[in-house]
Amino acid sequence: MTTTVSIDLNADLGEGFGRWELTDDEGLLAVVTSANVACGFHAGDAPTMRRVCELAAERGVAIGAQVSYRDLAGFGRRAMDVPPEELAAEVAYQIGALEVFARAAGARVAYVKPHGALYNRVVHDEEQAAAVAEGVALAGPGPDGRGLPVLGLPGSRLHEAAGRSGLPVVAEAFADRGYTAAGTLVPRREAGAVLTDPEAVAARAVRLARDGAVASASGEEVAVRARSLCVHGDTPRAVALARRVREALGGAGVAVEAFA
Amino acid sequence: MTTTVSIDLNADLGEGFGRWELTDDEGLLAVVTSANVACGFHAGDAPTMRRVCELAAERGVAIGAQVSYRDLAGFGRRAMDVPPEELAAEVAYQIGALEVFARAAGARVAYVKPHGALYNRVVHDEEQAAAVAEGVALAGPGPDGRGLPVLGLPGSRLHEAAGRSGLPVVAEAFADRGYTAAGTLVPRREAGAVLTDPEAVAARAVRLARDGAVASASGEEVAVRARSLCVHGDTPRAVALARRVREALGGAGVAVEAFA
Amino acid sequence: MTTTVSIDLNADLGEGFGRWELTDDEGLLAVVTSANVACGFHAGDAPTMRRVCELAAERGVAIGAQVSYRDLAGFGRRAMDVPPEELAAEVAYQIGALEVFARAAGARVAYVKPHGALYNRVVHDEEQAAAVAEGVALAGPGPDGRGLPVLGLPGSRLHEAAGRSGLPVVAEAFADRGYTAAGTLVPRREAGAVLTDPEAVAARAVRLARDGAVASASGEEVAVRARSLCVHGDTPRAVALARRVREALGGAGVAVEAFA
Amino acid sequence: MTTTVSIDLNADLGEGFGRWELTDDEGLLAVVTSANVACGFHAGDAPTMRRVCELAAERGVAIGAQVSYRDLAGFGRRAMDVPPEELAAEVAYQIGALEVFARAAGARVAYVKPHGALYNRVVHDEEQAAAVAEGVALAGPGPDGRGLPVLGLPGSRLHEAAGRSGLPVVAEAFADRGYTAAGTLVPRREAGAVLTDPEAVAARAVRLARDGAVASASGEEVAVRARSLCVHGDTPRAVALARRVREALGGAGVAVEAFA
Repeated sequence: MTTTVSIDLNADLGEGFGRWELTDDEGLLAVVTSANVACGFHAGDAPTMRRVCELAAERGVAIGAQVSYRDLAGFGRRAMDVPPEELAAEVAYQIGALEVFARAAGARVAYVKPHGALYNRVVHDEEQAAAVAEGVALAGPGPDGRGLPVLGLPGSRLHEAAGRSGLPVVAEAFADRGYTAAGTLVPRREAGAVLTDPEAVAARAVRLARDGAVASASGEEVAVRARSLCVHGDTPRAVALARRVREALGGAGVAVEAFA
Repeated sequence: MTTTVSIDLNADLGEGFGRWELTDDEGLLAVVTSANVACGFHAGDAPTMRRVCELAAERGVAIGAQVSYRDLAGFGRRAMDVPPEELAAEVAYQIGALEVFARAAGARVAYVKPHGALYNRVVHDEEQAAAVAEGVALAGPGPDGRGLPVLGLPGSRLHEAAGRSGLPVVAEAFADRGYTAAGTLVPRREAGAVLTDPEAVAARAVRLARDGAVASASGEEVAVRARSLCVHGDTPRAVALARRVREALGGAGVAVEAFA
Repeated sequence: MTTTVSIDLNADLGEGFGRWELTDDEGLLAVVTSANVACGFHAGDAPTMRRVCELAAERGVAIGAQVSYRDLAGFGRRAMDVPPEELAAEVAYQIGALEVFARAAGARVAYVKPHGALYNRVVHDEEQAAAVAEGVALAGPGPDGRGLPVLGLPGSRLHEAAGRSGLPVVAEAFADRGYTAAGTLVPRREAGAVLTDPEAVAARAVRLARDGAVASASGEEVAVRARSLCVHGDTPRAVALARRVREALGGAGVAVEAFA
Repeated sequence: MTTTVSIDLNADLGEGFGRWELTDDEGLLAVVTSANVACGFHAGDAPTMRRVCELAAERGVAIGAQVSYRDLAGFGRRAMDVPPEELAAEVAYQIGALEVFARAAGARVAYVKPHGALYNRVVHDEEQAAAVAEGVALAGPGPDGRGLPVLGLPGSRLHEAAGRSGLPVVAEAFADRGYTAAGTLVPRREAGAVLTDPEAVAARAVRLARDGAVASASGEEVAVRARSLCVHGDTPRAVALARRVREALGGAGVAVEAFA
């Protein structure tokens, strides 16, 4: 008896702005199955959004709205005390702006993933988590007629709030991040927070995808269930690493395909 | 024999930003039949866009995307040499952002009208006119399955470009602006450019709506065909003037209803 | 034996942006002795900064830099986790920008006061307080050859950090805010946080200025030492209230003059 | 008999923004004698401005304010119809912001050079040229007690306006751009507009510096007097080219030193 195991690979794309480029969008679109497209609040000008949607649609990569605090100067990496009614509306605004380009490319926005400081904030902050979920719900149904899926950390306040709003949730994991014995990420300032050896990262990706498990920083095996693995793409080396992860998954018989 | 004559009244709404308010949105929504909603580029934050769409939908006022150059500091009143591919994408971005709030309110974006310097530029500038039309076409079909109507000056390059793109065009006129014998607007720096007497403006509105004609600054009668009259709303006095125009139209047997 | 008692009145000015106006700058400049001028990050475009500096210089009103988080959409009212090296540089940037207009008007920036969420944050946040102080120190000496004075809450982390950086500190108090028995402000969401009766506010202003004391919300007399009283000015009523405060101070023999 | 010939090399620096980098600031500061530092309107966040000023001051490179239209999305490359009173104030604002960091580094802003679309616009546009000159004059005297020098194209409206305002003007030339027989730049869309061969560019730099002349696209020798040569630095290849230009000048006995 065989079970088919599949996993999604997601990465941040379109994170330039005007004259500035950051991500290797073409390189990443050859590797990932889900593209978290910046929507103009932390990065992502309109022509770039349009181009990335066209490329993603051509390649059959799912298009997700990577929503952020309004903070170009800080690249969305600075937590902000945005009142919930503003945050909800700003999330919906970004999704709507991206939807135009997804539709024009013959696709649809298929999911939503918060960026940077907002991503981290809604792990714990109930009020902002509820506001993000409200914003996603405001943006209305996705291609399948249900609310747009919310990609994020399992167990996060965001996933709880999304569930309460009737939105599908999709859990993601990180093959290049250390995990604690409790299954949470090792904070970035601690040793073992980030792994850089391509073979080690690829091996972890396979274990996460196939076995739903990863070795924690202290050596125990931890259960981490995820339908998507996040790969980073803001350096040439990172794109190569993402490629290695995809190869290893294929070699281990794991199907790499979008969740959406 | 009677013919039913009808006219639309449109006004700019939601032109505050964050802490700053400008337009009396509730006051205007009680008068006009089409609301040109600012989309965040010259004015219009996301919570305001949401609120205006909700109010407009409740009152049955048509929602239009008031698209602009990206210029908060200049309120979209400074012409900019935006390359056409950027301009097209920025127009589509704004329409998409507004569409989220229109749909959430149970309505749809029903038309597009450029704001300020962009409005003036695309009267004459073929390249930017084509870019705006491309952006509207990118945003896809409106509620009736055709492209979104473009509200603007009859004879403008924008209307020509919209026509070439298969977009419906809707002509507007101004009851409070002077017209030349050639049927164009008297430039603002010249005498007779702007009329302020409520009775005179209301009388002109009736003539424009019922007879498709207006007295020019030099006294001749000029034919001006329009399906929509633009009323201004950024001062308390202006809202009262708009109300007077609406009353006069009603009194003259002209039906005031949205074109969209 | 008589001692001369004097107090400064400060208010926020120039808090419009582009097309939007907020504060009655001319009205306020006839009342206050210190103008906290918005520097472009939460409000305050360059032409407004220039005009306010010219008017202030004409009237002998001291010019202060009202520095803020970079947040036009939120009017600087949303706390942000800005890394200290960014915050320090952004504070210095704003002071420098204002200094140009102060000098062009024949004056100088005479002090610095944080705005909104930054003001509140640096009451408690040691890291951001140190960053603001560093930014003020970076901006170099003021008209008297010492560092620029920092206007704020006595006992705040900002005042401690400013002191460590060798910057003069100036304490302010609020005649229209309730105080706890411990001498801190009653939080805005609690009853008694804001006083609106002009006579009551004026009487408290006199007590603060003359006696260094105020009645707390629970009735005890609290010592509150301040060289400056903050008056609000973003409504017509507020300007009238500020005027009443000034009259009452004059009537009580308190000299109203800038601290700087 | 020998005459000492000297020339300045200027380049644009600090043209990143937040997360995005563009120019190799350290590489360029090892080559040029004048740094045109972006001031936040088209690029250049506050921490970058601070760092570039510190590095420039350490190396004895003159610091210039590279002022721009307010246009991050367009990198200041889109001409804008900014009313003169706004433009003058915005120019002064940018100079003031940079001056803080120059002074903190023990230096001063030593000159002003417009960027991108503003640079091109004020070659011909008298009104905007006068506004830029007014903004520079507003910013007050430079280190030598006179107005800040304005770096730009000889014969431009900007240089005329600066002269009328009593500001020193400094002419620049481009070793990597084609010149017409009339001494103007070959438009970028025409053949021969940009030269890329390092040896050819270096040779032209020497001729411009030593002889005040350059071969036009049609072969005639044209007189081009310049005290500064602009070198580009936004690619690794460009920095190498700038280095080659500097070597060639040194080899030809031309002293490379700041004009300021």
